[in-house]
Amino acid sequence: MLVYGKNVSERILKDENLCENVKTIYTDAVFLQKNSSLFNDSLKSKIKIKRNYELDNLANGVHQGIIIDMEDYQYTSFSQFLVKKNSNKTVLMLDHILDPHNFGAIIRTAVAASIDAIIIPNNRQVLVTPTVVKTSVGAVFDIDIVLVTNLNTAIKDLKDNGFWIYGTVMDGEDYTKVDYNGNVCLVIGNEEKGISKLVKENCDFLVTIPISSKIDSLNASVAAGVLIYEMVRSRK
Amino acid sequence: MLVYGKNVSERILKDENLCENVKTIYTDAVFLQKNSSLFNDSLKSKIKIKRNYELDNLANGVHQGIIIDMEDYQYTSFSQFLVKKNSNKTVLMLDHILDPHNFGAIIRTAVAASIDAIIIPNNRQVLVTPTVVKTSVGAVFDIDIVLVTNLNTAIKDLKDNGFWIYGTVMDGEDYTKVDYNGNVCLVIGNEEKGISKLVKENCDFLVTIPISSKIDSLNASVAAGVLIYEMVRSRK
Repeated sequence: MLVYGKNVSERILKDENLCENVKTIYTDAVFLQKNSSLFNDSLKSKIKIKRNYELDNLANGVHQGIIIDMEDYQYTSFSQFLVKKNSNKTVLMLDHILDPHNFGAIIRTAVAASIDAIIIPNNRQVLVTPTVVKTSVGAVFDIDIVLVTNLNTAIKDLKDNGFWIYGTVMDGEDYTKVDYNGNVCLVIGNEEKGISKLVKENCDFLVTIPISSKIDSLNASVAAGVLIYEMVRSRK
Repeated sequence: MLVYGKNVSERILKDENLCENVKTIYTDAVFLQKNSSLFNDSLKSKIKIKRNYELDNLANGVHQGIIIDMEDYQYTSFSQFLVKKNSNKTVLMLDHILDPHNFGAIIRTAVAASIDAIIIPNNRQVLVTPTVVKTSVGAVFDIDIVLVTNLNTAIKDLKDNGFWIYGTVMDGEDYTKVDYNGNVCLVIGNEEKGISKLVKENCDFLVTIPISSKIDSLNASVAAGVLIYEMVRSRK
C-alpha cells in the first residue's frame, strides 16, 4: 500500500511497530533536508530520492514530498476483537459506506472519541485505501478495523456477547432520548440508502437525528460524529 | 456560476425563485429524456444540448449529465440578517475555513439543524463555489450566508444585538457543560490554526469537544456538527 502526505508519514515513521511494515520511502531532496530527524539509520536505508514529478506519478493525491510503500493494512478479525476487552465496549458498524473521505473522517472521529473498533463488511464497502489513510490523518493505525463477511452474522455474534445494537434511520426514536450504556454497537448506513433492511430488523434500537424538512439527510461522517458524541456524553 | 450534479440541479429547477437566476442549462440527450419533467417551457428555452465530453470540459467535477449556468450566489448583508428575526437566533461564524468540502458539509448541517445564518469573512475563506454548492447538496440556497469584511467587527455588532459568542478551542470548557440559550453565535476555526487570537479574546465562552490524546483534532465539519447538535439538544 502506498500512503502519502506529511502528517500520515510522521505518524508512521514515529511508530516503531509501523516502521517494521515500511518497505520503501520515496521522498524528494527538499523534504529530506527539512525533516531529516524523522529518519533513523534503518529508515534511511529504505529511502529512494525522487524528483517531484516522479512523486506526482506515484501518488494518487497530494503527497507533500513523501510517499511510503508499506505492507498492506492489517485488519482485525472478529474473534481478536472480542477477546480484547470484556465490558463497556463501544463499536461502530458501517453498513456499506462507499466514500473514502467519509470513511476516513469516521475513523478520525472514532479514535477521537475512544471507540474500541469499527466493523465493516468486506464487500460493497470502501476498505482502507491511501485516501482513507490520509483523510483519517493516520488515525486508522490507532483503532481496530474489523473485517467481516456478513454484517447480520456479526450482529448476531455481538448480541450473543452482550451488545445492544443501535441503527441510524430516518423514522426512529430521537437519538438523545435513548440509553447508550453497556456494550454498544452503533450502525451507520450507506450514504444513499441508509442501513439495509435486514440490518434494520436486527437492531435493538432505531435512532434518528432530527433534521429540517428542507433537507434529505446529513453527511454520513457528520451524522456519525453527532451520534458518537451523544453516546459519549450520555455514558459519562 | 456553473453548478452541476443531479441533486443540486433538481433543487434549483424545482424552485421558482432560483429558476429566475438560471441563464443556461447544459445537458445531454440522455439526461433530458430521463428527466424531462424537470423542465417547464421557460426552462426548456434555456437548454443547450451537449455531448458528454463537452460537459466534462465545462464542469470541474462529476456533473451527472447536467450543468447549470446561473447568476452568482447572492450573499446576505449583515444588516439584512439582523432585521430578519428578533430573538433566539442561532448563527455560525466560520473563522477562515479553507476546504470547500468542509464548508459544504457545514452548510448542510446548519440547514438540517435550522440554524438561521452562517457568517463568513470575505478573504482567506472559501466562498460559495460550485464544489461548495454540490457538497451542500443545494442546502446553500436554504440559508443566509452573510459576508463580512471583519469578523471582530461582526462579533462586536452581534454582541450589541444581544448575542453570546461561543468559540471552539482546544483548552476551553467541556462543550456539554455550557448554557446555549438566547441568541447564540458558534465560531468554528480554520482547519489547521483553529480560531484566530483576537476572535478568541472576543468570545464570551470558549468550548472544547474532548478528544483522545492519540489525535490532534476532529475534522472541522464533524466538530461543527457535534457542537451544533449539542446546542440544539440543550436548547430544547
